[in-house]
Amino acid sequence: MSQERMKVLGVDPGLTRCGIGVVVGAPGSPLSLSGVGVIHTSASAPLEQRLLQLESELTKWLDQYDPDVIAVERVFSQHNVRTVMGTGQAAGIALLLAAKRGIPVMMHTPSEVKAAVTGNGRANKTQVAQMVVRILSLKEAPKPVDSTDALALAICNIWRAGATSKIQAALKQEKTRVAKLVKK
Amino acid sequence: MSQERMKVLGVDPGLTRCGIGVVVGAPGSPLSLSGVGVIHTSASAPLEQRLLQLESELTKWLDQYDPDVIAVERVFSQHNVRTVMGTGQAAGIALLLAAKRGIPVMMHTPSEVKAAVTGNGRANKTQVAQMVVRILSLKEAPKPVDSTDALALAICNIWRAGATSKIQAALKQEKTRVAKLVKK
Repeated sequence: MSQERMKVLGVDPGLTRCGIGVVVGAPGSPLSLSGVGVIHTSASAPLEQRLLQLESELTKWLDQYDPDVIAVERVFSQHNVRTVMGTGQAAGIALLLAAKRGIPVMMHTPSEVKAAVTGNGRANKTQVAQMVVRILSLKEAPKPVDSTDALALAICNIWRAGATSKIQAALKQEKTRVAKLVKK
Repeated sequence: MSQERMKVLGVDPGLTRCGIGVVVGAPGSPLSLSGVGVIHTSASAPLEQRLLQLESELTKWLDQYDPDVIAVERVFSQHNVRTVMGTGQAAGIALLLAAKRGIPVMMHTPSEVKAAVTGNGRANKTQVAQMVVRILSLKEAPKPVDSTDALALAICNIWRAGATSKIQAALKQEKTRVAKLVKK
């Protein structure tokens, strides 16, 4: 079954560092890195100015890459409450911009991303980075290193979308088969 | 000392219910209610659509009332983690819109609001509602009741801004006095 190529912009949300990774490809075909970077905002700036800066820089990424899908890490508040609030707000800005442009959004948890990329939902940062390098046929770890998770998110999105569409195709085939049997 | 009148739009952030209250007045003068309402978004809609709807309706409020200041409740994640994330994201949208328009933002914690309005940082909802009715010379509790906290936020903002400017004025006076003494 052939799968359509897609361009996915992955967002590893954060206020101080927001990782961005753009990957192009289709499930079952080689994937390639299209763009990568990190948006920084100053911890000493007022929160509203940081959100505005993030929105403005994310907008530039969307203008430049015009992705088919935006993949955002699903945020949990297990750790530092203060950090998590900023992370959630940064994710919220990415979601808002996606909705404004009518770009589909998919969210993946950190363990879904790790499992998709390394086969192990509890893989560490180094293992994820090594697999990202291999999957995208890079010569070295992506720089800045903060963007590795965003690339992993984009890869995860392409592969999961492939799995989802395979399941949907199989279900459709099965429905057609059953419908034919019922008609007989 | 005369204080300038200001129009404050209070935002009690939330994804399912976001309270809005607009209050006009100056510290030491009677305050009046200018507008009040609640923005609802459906819990069954995708997160990005809820954020987009919130942004679009908040924009209408800002267009209609053109406030001098936006007062937003400072969000803590003491309680339900899932709710707090949505609350933080809703607050983030309000902050972003304020920054885009260059409208100053002030954030107040729930206990600061309660203390400002009732004199007691641990006042309950009924006590806050009763004081909001009295301060704004309303005939009955504001409707929808979800908007009471947004009105209390706006009131708190006007009074705290008054206190802040009084302190600043007193400091300025003292500096001038000391400067004169030093010159002598």
